[in-house]
Amino acid sequence: MSIFENKEQKFTSISSLGEFGLIDHITKDIEHYNDSTLKGVGDDAAVIKCGAFCQVVSTDLLVEGVHFDLSYAPLKHLGYKAVVVNLSDICAMNVIPTQITVSLALSNRFPLEAVEELYAGVKLACKQYEVDLIGGDTTSSLSGLMISVTAMGMAKEEDIVYRSGAGEKDLIVTTGDLGGAYLGLQILEREKAVFMEDKNMQPDLHGSEYVLERQLKPEARKDVVEMFKKMDLKPTSMIDISDGLSSELLHLAKSSDAGLQVYEEKIPVDPTVMTIAEEFNLNGVTCALNGGEDYELLFTVAQNDYEKIKANPNMTIIGYMTEKSSGVHLITHDAKAIPLTAQGWNSHQKDA
Amino acid sequence: MSIFENKEQKFTSISSLGEFGLIDHITKDIEHYNDSTLKGVGDDAAVIKCGAFCQVVSTDLLVEGVHFDLSYAPLKHLGYKAVVVNLSDICAMNVIPTQITVSLALSNRFPLEAVEELYAGVKLACKQYEVDLIGGDTTSSLSGLMISVTAMGMAKEEDIVYRSGAGEKDLIVTTGDLGGAYLGLQILEREKAVFMEDKNMQPDLHGSEYVLERQLKPEARKDVVEMFKKMDLKPTSMIDISDGLSSELLHLAKSSDAGLQVYEEKIPVDPTVMTIAEEFNLNGVTCALNGGEDYELLFTVAQNDYEKIKANPNMTIIGYMTEKSSGVHLITHDAKAIPLTAQGWNSHQKDA
Repeated sequence: MSIFENKEQKFTSISSLGEFGLIDHITKDIEHYNDSTLKGVGDDAAVIKCGAFCQVVSTDLLVEGVHFDLSYAPLKHLGYKAVVVNLSDICAMNVIPTQITVSLALSNRFPLEAVEELYAGVKLACKQYEVDLIGGDTTSSLSGLMISVTAMGMAKEEDIVYRSGAGEKDLIVTTGDLGGAYLGLQILEREKAVFMEDKNMQPDLHGSEYVLERQLKPEARKDVVEMFKKMDLKPTSMIDISDGLSSELLHLAKSSDAGLQVYEEKIPVDPTVMTIAEEFNLNGVTCALNGGEDYELLFTVAQNDYEKIKANPNMTIIGYMTEKSSGVHLITHDAKAIPLTAQGWNSHQKDA
Repeated sequence: MSIFENKEQKFTSISSLGEFGLIDHITKDIEHYNDSTLKGVGDDAAVIKCGAFCQVVSTDLLVEGVHFDLSYAPLKHLGYKAVVVNLSDICAMNVIPTQITVSLALSNRFPLEAVEELYAGVKLACKQYEVDLIGGDTTSSLSGLMISVTAMGMAKEEDIVYRSGAGEKDLIVTTGDLGGAYLGLQILEREKAVFMEDKNMQPDLHGSEYVLERQLKPEARKDVVEMFKKMDLKPTSMIDISDGLSSELLHLAKSSDAGLQVYEEKIPVDPTVMTIAEEFNLNGVTCALNGGEDYELLFTVAQNDYEKIKANPNMTIIGYMTEKSSGVHLITHDAKAIPLTAQGWNSHQKDA
């Protein structure tokens, strides 16, 4: 209702476009006026030229009831995670994050102690990653909690890695293991449902520690970016795995104007993840492909760099880049080629 | 309610601290780990060293029902204003803003056309100020609209102006005129009340165009920063007027560890503002002192620079800095010295 309302107008629902459709729609006619803007929308972070260096910038908005549920996400973990997911975006540019701003909107149902808990998590992440909290904004909201974090880092232009640099035959590599964060969320949702039935029930989380930690306290792979520097290795392309391996592989292929093949048997899934997936009648590899929030790095390297990564326990080669016309495929255990689609679980749409 | 709830804990309400109290509380133990962080929390923007230059960063969060009311703030104006208030913070550091990120959370009551309107305003501000939209995040919310904007600009370290540099006897100068935005808000609130009584009433806004524009479509004084460069003038301290002249004067005095005196008769108030203030049984100068959102620049210059500014129609000298022990005073028409207090109207607290 507006005092200037035009009652004749026809309306389109946002959900009909989807998140990526909406972003494309909004950003399609963006103009740049400054030569210092080297990269705007369309990668893990934007890149600003600043003299002999570049400043890399990424921002994320987390909304209660959409991205997190305070009935099982402790505020300290939430503060930690809100920082980490942004640091992960900076790392995905091959850059060490150094500064963040944190803005908070919260309703009067939150006492000071809640804000302290949340900032305890923010500050813990700052300490852990040696990142400086340099600003922000704190305001009230009519309902719920919202956290907006912007992360920054500095790099030489030639050291920055985009999504777009993967060449034919480059090896596709992922760090760590995948699918855990998604299963952690399934367990928390299950225990919440049990608790809602009977408030005296204590959550049964035994044996699920690994996947719960993956969901509630993820880490950004700053260590991997540091490893790259020590190994004198520059990936040809890179993205962080926030929406599931499938979705990120499609981003890499599209941005690099290429095709790719990955092998089901190569996708790293922790044994715990396999076991818990079975409890939920899910396939562990499907969780890795379509689950989200693992915050590992997915990157490509030239064939020549194979020796540098082959024995690294943090890195698993899962496939290779092909020419564009070959498409984007998963090769299954029984050698079938399945086209990957962007059904990737998306934290922004999990309640849609 | 949390499944991990501790029912023994005692709680403190946030409102008992106030906004600035909360910020002090949160930021008092912040540690910096990077030499590149030249300035963190505590000025209009943070300053990051980046090679031979600095990157200046500021962020703001606008929440529906707290900072704006969509029943009278058209979405396009809101998008424009959300950008401008952040650009104003960069200008207040004596820096030309060049990049922004915009994040949006909105409930499903907003159709695509609403998002387009809002971004039309964002893009208009980008064009007007030659600023590049380089990133952001768009997500759903359970209720209401929230906009988080981060603005950036680049400068040489020696050109950056902080709140803290004002010296004794420096002249205190404000740009433009003050109090208009606050009265614009009063008119909109009045017309909304009329409209709520009778939905067929059309708002009566005749003669109020100036103050409405000050409220709904404020401008950042980028032109003044450009003027400084042409005039070869570097203010000794600067802040933007977002919370009212009183509040900003107190910030300058505190940051510069100084006292100051300003003269009631010197405070620039537009004749329209005087007239409308009387309609509301308010004093125009009080609106300038305690109203907010004018987004003019308040700065100090050395006495030596008097010649550079004395004939500039954009600038009004309203007083001078004193030693700290003299305090912060307004000298009234009848030569009384009234201590200024931080009763400054604050957009973050207007519903408190």
